[in-house]
Amino acid sequence: MNISIERPDPKLRTALQAKIDSLTKPKGSLGRLEELALQVGLIQQTLSPRLCHPQNIVFAADHGIVEEGVSVAPKEVTWQQVLHFTHPQGTGGVNFLCRQHGFALKVVDAGVDYTFPKDRGIIDLKVRRGTSNFLHEPAMTEAEMEQCLAGGARVVRQCAEEGSNVLSFGEMGIGNTSSSSLWMSYFTGIPLSACVGAGSGLDIKGILHKLDVLSRAKDNYRGDGSTRDLIRWFGGFEMVMAVGAMLQAAELKMVILVDGFIMTSCMLAASKLCPAVQDYAVFGHCGDESGHRKMLDAMGAKPLLNLGLRLGEGTGAICAYPILESAVRMINEMDTFSAAEITKYF
Amino acid sequence: MNISIERPDPKLRTALQAKIDSLTKPKGSLGRLEELALQVGLIQQTLSPRLCHPQNIVFAADHGIVEEGVSVAPKEVTWQQVLHFTHPQGTGGVNFLCRQHGFALKVVDAGVDYTFPKDRGIIDLKVRRGTSNFLHEPAMTEAEMEQCLAGGARVVRQCAEEGSNVLSFGEMGIGNTSSSSLWMSYFTGIPLSACVGAGSGLDIKGILHKLDVLSRAKDNYRGDGSTRDLIRWFGGFEMVMAVGAMLQAAELKMVILVDGFIMTSCMLAASKLCPAVQDYAVFGHCGDESGHRKMLDAMGAKPLLNLGLRLGEGTGAICAYPILESAVRMINEMDTFSAAEITKYF
Repeated sequence: MNISIERPDPKLRTALQAKIDSLTKPKGSLGRLEELALQVGLIQQTLSPRLCHPQNIVFAADHGIVEEGVSVAPKEVTWQQVLHFTHPQGTGGVNFLCRQHGFALKVVDAGVDYTFPKDRGIIDLKVRRGTSNFLHEPAMTEAEMEQCLAGGARVVRQCAEEGSNVLSFGEMGIGNTSSSSLWMSYFTGIPLSACVGAGSGLDIKGILHKLDVLSRAKDNYRGDGSTRDLIRWFGGFEMVMAVGAMLQAAELKMVILVDGFIMTSCMLAASKLCPAVQDYAVFGHCGDESGHRKMLDAMGAKPLLNLGLRLGEGTGAICAYPILESAVRMINEMDTFSAAEITKYF
Repeated sequence: MNISIERPDPKLRTALQAKIDSLTKPKGSLGRLEELALQVGLIQQTLSPRLCHPQNIVFAADHGIVEEGVSVAPKEVTWQQVLHFTHPQGTGGVNFLCRQHGFALKVVDAGVDYTFPKDRGIIDLKVRRGTSNFLHEPAMTEAEMEQCLAGGARVVRQCAEEGSNVLSFGEMGIGNTSSSSLWMSYFTGIPLSACVGAGSGLDIKGILHKLDVLSRAKDNYRGDGSTRDLIRWFGGFEMVMAVGAMLQAAELKMVILVDGFIMTSCMLAASKLCPAVQDYAVFGHCGDESGHRKMLDAMGAKPLLNLGLRLGEGTGAICAYPILESAVRMINEMDTFSAAEITKYF
């Protein structure tokens, strides 16, 4: 995949900051809203940014490493949940949040071990029915990695054609905190033991077993240590698609809402391939998964929310969307001190 | 004012928790949303809570203590801002948030030093044109305190008649962080120096002067040390109205969204009069005002957001509303494991 991401031109920064400072409030008193307005203004290169047609894209796939007992949830939960949140009644966790905040939902089969019915609108980009077990071999081939990157990018281009300029990404894939922990450890240098957590509900014994499996997977690694090799060796199909999607979204100058632990690890991997991608990222949520805060800190990322969510599917990112919308409304809808005839006292 | 607040009957807790745990997500994985759903379900005594017609009530008043130079903003900003956010075009900070989240806005003149035009819909409960300077005398008389408590309660009853079951409260009153710091110090026992901050933008010299003024006000205090006496001696008209409003809202079993430093100090004062009021409180935001975090900790309160807001007017509370709405949607709109045919693995 050939991606060329420009950093937002900083020349507009002074004018944006001046507009924000002229609004009828003590300087800086809308905190993170002011930072977000600046970021979105820079991304869109305008003093009057807009958020158009938000969409949440859930990439789903299965993981060979689940054979090693690294997850409390059985593998079948992946396809069951995909069916669940593509059900016409929309009664899954991500569904009510999409409805509440006006998000369209796209669900992508990146490699689930199940044959889905055709009538659910699931986007079929299945690479194969789950990755290989990376305890013994690379999770995917180089060709499969390229296929994932290109597939994720294609879905994002589709969203752009539909008029979206803000996307959130989520995932469904039993076992994918294992891949995320390994990416985190390799890409930040933080010891694996600080990157491994409970996933969807392991107890302390389960976490220690997971750490043992992942440590052995690291010992067994025989690749060249490059970013691309680590991505394919330990990644999931849904995760590599998310990486491709994020890179494409940044190239198209879209705002990227980053969800929890797994999507943060995808943004981390994407930033290793192309650091400018992070200029387009808004980190929605810091979850309780062990290591998420450390990963965010290592990336210099400041998440908007900390609500103890650990569901995935994009839920943490979508919950943060109204704050992003507030920032955009602030810069467009608030009056200036001079227009409002209020004494400017600073 | 005669208020009798019942604690929500805890008998429903088991059934509410069982409903929340049956939803298609790992147990506890929606974090704070689950806690909020439980709280609102208990307040409304139902497994299917609803949020109806949210309103934000801004109480505004002036403060005699401003004569002592405790605020960087001049007193006239109080009336100017009240005119501003009651302007038909609604271009103030609180206005865009009300529009975004579907809040009606009520603005109450509790005691602003200005004669407002009649065509702005400002609710006229003016006690007088600003409190007395509490460096030398009580801010208000006992009769004025009662007038404020009753006035705030009356506005809330009006909201209830209009169909509201969730309210946020905000304030506009140059000088009111001074009153809040004193209430905080008296009601929590935290030393005054840890309760005094920058307000709308004091520098370090200004903060030290403010601390000196407030320390001398404390030295000059000649009351009986009771909650009611401290409320009237150091309070603002808008703050005491907010206290009355919160007590009335709890009596009517409404959800109370608590804004920043000043509204937290009002909830603290209300809880000293009637501890059960806090069962109805959802703390929206922890601001940067020095002492806010300590006050919340002293109250055992966990704010939903931390976005560095310090504007007041209810902005922090309204920003948190979508999270409350998510919680209510979760419990009403998510399916159960059995209905969704997903393996329950815990």
